Amino acid sequence: MTRIAYLGPRGTFTEQALGVFLQQFQVADARSLPVASPAAAIDLVRAGEADYACVAIENSVDGPVTPTFDALSSGEGVQIYREVDLDIAFAIMVRPGTSPEQIRTISTHPVAYQQVTGWLAEHIPGVDFVPASSNAAAAVEVAEGRADAAAAPRAAAELHGLEVLADGVADHAGARTRFALVGPAGACPAPTGNDRTAVVFSLPNEPGTLVAALQEFAVRGVDMAQIESRPTRQKLGTYHFHVTLVGHIEDAPVAEALKALYLRSPDLRFLGSWPSAVGAPGEVSSPRSAAHERAEAWLRAAREGHAAAHHGSDHGEENH
Amino acid sequence: MTRIAYLGPRGTFTEQALGVFLQQFQVADARSLPVASPAAAIDLVRAGEADYACVAIENSVDGPVTPTFDALSSGEGVQIYREVDLDIAFAIMVRPGTSPEQIRTISTHPVAYQQVTGWLAEHIPGVDFVPASSNAAAAVEVAEGRADAAAAPRAAAELHGLEVLADGVADHAGARTRFALVGPAGACPAPTGNDRTAVVFSLPNEPGTLVAALQEFAVRGVDMAQIESRPTRQKLGTYHFHVTLVGHIEDAPVAEALKALYLRSPDLRFLGSWPSAVGAPGEVSSPRSAAHERAEAWLRAAREGHAAAHHGSDHGEENH
Amino acid sequence: MTRIAYLGPRGTFTEQALGVFLQQFQVADARSLPVASPAAAIDLVRAGEADYACVAIENSVDGPVTPTFDALSSGEGVQIYREVDLDIAFAIMVRPGTSPEQIRTISTHPVAYQQVTGWLAEHIPGVDFVPASSNAAAAVEVAEGRADAAAAPRAAAELHGLEVLADGVADHAGARTRFALVGPAGACPAPTGNDRTAVVFSLPNEPGTLVAALQEFAVRGVDMAQIESRPTRQKLGTYHFHVTLVGHIEDAPVAEALKALYLRSPDLRFLGSWPSAVGAPGEVSSPRSAAHERAEAWLRAAREGHAAAHHGSDHGEENH
Amino acid sequence: MTRIAYLGPRGTFTEQALGVFLQQFQVADARSLPVASPAAAIDLVRAGEADYACVAIENSVDGPVTPTFDALSSGEGVQIYREVDLDIAFAIMVRPGTSPEQIRTISTHPVAYQQVTGWLAEHIPGVDFVPASSNAAAAVEVAEGRADAAAAPRAAAELHGLEVLADGVADHAGARTRFALVGPAGACPAPTGNDRTAVVFSLPNEPGTLVAALQEFAVRGVDMAQIESRPTRQKLGTYHFHVTLVGHIEDAPVAEALKALYLRSPDLRFLGSWPSAVGAPGEVSSPRSAAHERAEAWLRAAREGHAAAHHGSDHGEENH
Repeated sequence: MTRIAYLGPRGTFTEQALGVFLQQFQVADARSLPVASPAAAIDLVRAGEADYACVAIENSVDGPVTPTFDALSSGEGVQIYREVDLDIAFAIMVRPGTSPEQIRTISTHPVAYQQVTGWLAEHIPGVDFVPASSNAAAAVEVAEGRADAAAAPRAAAELHGLEVLADGVADHAGARTRFALVGPAGACPAPTGNDRTAVVFSLPNEPGTLVAALQEFAVRGVDMAQIESRPTRQKLGTYHFHVTLVGHIEDAPVAEALKALYLRSPDLRFLGSWPSAVGAPGEVSSPRSAAHERAEAWLRAAREGHAAAHHGSDHGEENH
Repeated sequence: MTRIAYLGPRGTFTEQALGVFLQQFQVADARSLPVASPAAAIDLVRAGEADYACVAIENSVDGPVTPTFDALSSGEGVQIYREVDLDIAFAIMVRPGTSPEQIRTISTHPVAYQQVTGWLAEHIPGVDFVPASSNAAAAVEVAEGRADAAAAPRAAAELHGLEVLADGVADHAGARTRFALVGPAGACPAPTGNDRTAVVFSLPNEPGTLVAALQEFAVRGVDMAQIESRPTRQKLGTYHFHVTLVGHIEDAPVAEALKALYLRSPDLRFLGSWPSAVGAPGEVSSPRSAAHERAEAWLRAAREGHAAAHHGSDHGEENH
Repeated sequence: MTRIAYLGPRGTFTEQALGVFLQQFQVADARSLPVASPAAAIDLVRAGEADYACVAIENSVDGPVTPTFDALSSGEGVQIYREVDLDIAFAIMVRPGTSPEQIRTISTHPVAYQQVTGWLAEHIPGVDFVPASSNAAAAVEVAEGRADAAAAPRAAAELHGLEVLADGVADHAGARTRFALVGPAGACPAPTGNDRTAVVFSLPNEPGTLVAALQEFAVRGVDMAQIESRPTRQKLGTYHFHVTLVGHIEDAPVAEALKALYLRSPDLRFLGSWPSAVGAPGEVSSPRSAAHERAEAWLRAAREGHAAAHHGSDHGEENH
Repeated sequence: MTRIAYLGPRGTFTEQALGVFLQQFQVADARSLPVASPAAAIDLVRAGEADYACVAIENSVDGPVTPTFDALSSGEGVQIYREVDLDIAFAIMVRPGTSPEQIRTISTHPVAYQQVTGWLAEHIPGVDFVPASSNAAAAVEVAEGRADAAAAPRAAAELHGLEVLADGVADHAGARTRFALVGPAGACPAPTGNDRTAVVFSLPNEPGTLVAALQEFAVRGVDMAQIESRPTRQKLGTYHFHVTLVGHIEDAPVAEALKALYLRSPDLRFLGSWPSAVGAPGEVSSPRSAAHERAEAWLRAAREGHAAAHHGSDHGEENH
């Protein structure tokens, strides 16, 4: 049986993401463990009480989910194995029989609140905001009478016997959230040619160290999908850097960049390589890998003294 | 009369920072305007209804205050004029007569909650968290009976007739928050030799553009005090970058780096140059400026054909 | 009267280049002073005994004319004002009546010899080479009977009463030599939008200093037309670097790069900015300058607090 | 029998260097083949008519020996196996009985002439220079009566029955020349921890390509001992670059830099890795290699999912 911890209670978007992961892997025998925060989910994996944690890592409106990043970097032993992107839109739900005019308070997660304030101002002006620890928890608040309405995933209405007044509510069209499947450190999924790699590191607190570190990626043609600085919590202005790279640790340019970064950072941690949720397998890294393989062949020939190391070749076209 | 908007209600750390600013500038005739969020404070400045906004921009435990950054970059017409750092520790306050055993719920701002959870687990285990829109608002919750205890600035206890059970509560010793005084766009404070400069910009969504942009700083010896990426809210993985530089826009290296950045970014915005709250005037940028002035003199001589442009000089020492 | 020193005797390619310079400037009253080497010509300028020196600086077969570079960098007080490119092909000349079969020895300058050895091997195989200090001096050797034939500019045959056996001799079709007009340090010719700038400098003998110095150009979009290292003559492996840039010292990117280089080099010397002999005025630097002027305007607005500094603009197209 | 071609005739400094190589390798049965130029020596190796060529590659007064570089890069099939540095000072030699006052002409190689002109101006002012194809050839000129004196290695006086008027003549004290032993392409000598590596390459004729190529070395901490540009002989301003690196192709940073360079250059050629003549084995590359090995171990652990990839370690000290 596969145990997967997630941000509960039941009815959250995180639970939806978990469902997608289960479907992708055709896990017949899974048990989902709702917990109170991404950190709690990841801690269960570290403790061996869950096999995986399903956690939100980024959304297109509020950016990186910093509690998840902080939880990933606060200890060892875990890495990311998969990601999935979900469209995010909310249902506005009330206890059956409540009319819009009767709504005085609305509950939801603070990040979600930012994504529906425009809609609320237009359709239910003047309501008070009651923060909840998750969107699904907001539905519970309504069901138990502590708030009049909730902005939550539609699934939460069914779970808690609520009535949906409006669906597909989202101030920013096309809002998406990315979720990750986190497990104990281990071998990465095989490269697909369209992968991501995550690391976290700090740097000596000296001028120029950040640019020098990022150049290790740039000079090898390794793109950053994301960079995020998080305070070390020790001193204002000191940071850990979370970087998500385009490519797999088995791709030579990524591997060489990480080795170079290792020499610059006192505490580089590898957080996994996994297939990208955006685009098709092979669409990103294969052309570069082909060129890199020719470079590898050139190097071997040079080391062994073969004539091939003295030939230019028809390799220049796809570079640059 | 100087009107200054801040995150209220009365009794917040932001109000304390505002007091420091008033003292520094010896403003006799000020009126403070409590509002519900940093964004609301900055909007009042943009609307001309406040002369300044006092807003938190960074804290050593949770990092950049993203709502402030988003508010600064969401429109035009404002810039930062001053900063101040405050030590942050909380008082745990209750309605008079409440004993620790009677506490079932504790209210505070979610960022503050992260800074006291360790203490709570040890001293009042098992209490429920009730999120509030500010620390001082949490004190109101307690005064009005909607929560049993609040973690808030000590000043809030006096304002709301509460009793302090514990003071100086902080899980991370030495926690500090930085506040900024934001006003309408205008001439910057004069350079002090120890200044900061803030800009926000986006970059073409192409490989290597971020490193290339950051190199404009590095190659000119301009250090970054902070870099923060915020989603554009249009597409997952597209960002605005907020960068705080060491130095003043009147310092030649900063000016040249910003001109170079202008050529790389479709929407560079200047958010001000102001005296640093850390360290003494003159301690940062003067040595570099002196070298830079000699370089400027060399350039003039070269352009005019003077012999000086053909001499090396005793200038190399302080450059590394 | 304008006195111009050049590599003599009469009949050299350098004298031809001198003629082009005189024509370009419509100098009515010039006196040309033949000397034995580029260094001697430049020394006459330094001593005030010549107004200009006409010297070869580069050819397409043998590369930089290192004695010229060494002479320019060995002292102060001179800079380059103009350049001209000449097609280089040789006439094979003998005393009247000499038949090809009678030729046992051929004289020319060693660099010229490299450019005709293919032709000689085919047409007069087996002749011995007699080095001369200039091509025209080789013609003198023939006229005075110390060699049987010379490879020299056609003009030298007429000057010395020789007969031309073959003309247009050149192993590498399209061979060209660039000549410079060197004068005392002074104000540069005005920018034309298609200029070159020369500097010479050394660098601290530490890893990475050369790349760091060259990056000062690259990061500002300043292209190098040429880089040449010359030994300092003090220790194997220590060098002066001669760099020719695309652009004029009055162009802001060039000026800023030179200031930055000044901070890295213990002995940067400026050797002039002058119109390029290749291409039309305006074809190189004006687009960049226009973008740079907008950046300058942005900076002014930012410093003065105008709204313009908060606007992106339609400036991005021509960059990159 | 080992056949070694060198710049003759007998008595040159190149022959002295050849003697050092023979001694180092304890070659009992060698035959030396004097030829007219470094190019001719290298061509014999390419043709299989010599096993090695002994050629000058650089001297501290005149810099790189460009004919050697051009010969190495003009074709394939050869690489450098060893280097040796010789102190260079000249003997002034005459036919027995010649007094200094009788000297009207002095013969030597043009590069040598540059190194004795100061001495000549002081001790035998007014003599005419007769260029020779090698220093030893100059001694032949004197022996055969075509010049009065020669500046040549002392050994040449004995070979040709000349009398030495002055010894140890050198305008620049400490002048040295580096010689290389060139053989057919093959396996390199094993790394010693203090090695050099040579490559030659061209680059697309576009702005910034040279700096980008050199950065491949800099970013990996690979130092350049030398960089030399040589014209392609096709167009003014187009070059091949000869770069000598500190390190061995078996050192991981060198290998990775060369692979990266391969991706940038249409015609990278490897010219060998060999022990440096300066300094002791192990003194250059071992510290970096040790750090690099730890990086390699980290990478392996990360790929295999071991905990080591999540630990920082005590590795930072020797970097930077």
